[in-house]
Amino acid sequence: MTGPVQTPEPPYYAVIFVSEHADDDAGYAVTAARMDELVRGMDGFLGYDHAGEGFGITVSYWRDLAAIARWRAQAEHMMAQRAGKERWYARYSLRVARVERQSFYAKPPAA
Amino acid sequence: MTGPVQTPEPPYYAVIFVSEHADDDAGYAVTAARMDELVRGMDGFLGYDHAGEGFGITVSYWRDLAAIARWRAQAEHMMAQRAGKERWYARYSLRVARVERQSFYAKPPAA
Repeated sequence: MTGPVQTPEPPYYAVIFVSEHADDDAGYAVTAARMDELVRGMDGFLGYDHAGEGFGITVSYWRDLAAIARWRAQAEHMMAQRAGKERWYARYSLRVARVERQSFYAKPPAA
Repeated sequence: MTGPVQTPEPPYYAVIFVSEHADDDAGYAVTAARMDELVRGMDGFLGYDHAGEGFGITVSYWRDLAAIARWRAQAEHMMAQRAGKERWYARYSLRVARVERQSFYAKPPAA
């Protein structure tokens, strides 16, 4: 079982990244795997959900804005952000939002 | 061109819905199309992005919490929510978040 990830009680923050990939995906998979590894080591990182290919949405969850600022300024991540603009993404939107409420549902096992 | 959708200047709200589908998708496509039609007519609805199948993320954008509350309580949507729990979704998470910052990127046309 992967996702939807569980998160602690709000308030906390979500970074909502919606992207349309460009044709050039050279180096993307390796970098994405490295970013996955790096982000899990960041203080204040609470998890992320990702869906889609080509057109994708990644929502990462963070304890506070300071943790988001540190991730945004992480050196390898900054290089990845730059490569994303130059090569991998045709378009994207990026939002920072304060999570105020959450709920989780899981279907009970069939009888 | 579909998404990432454009939204007005923050603050506004995002509803982040992350779901894993169950095996039963009877009626899902028809209901999803009807919800798409209905939501576009809701006062305060600003658009949505969706990615993934099987495991999917939908982020809808709203002017304020009152608009989200009206959509949540819309009669046909309430029936769809119920069918979602009973049939279509194995698991989901639902978050309401206040968008504080946003940015958009589009790659310049190749020279």
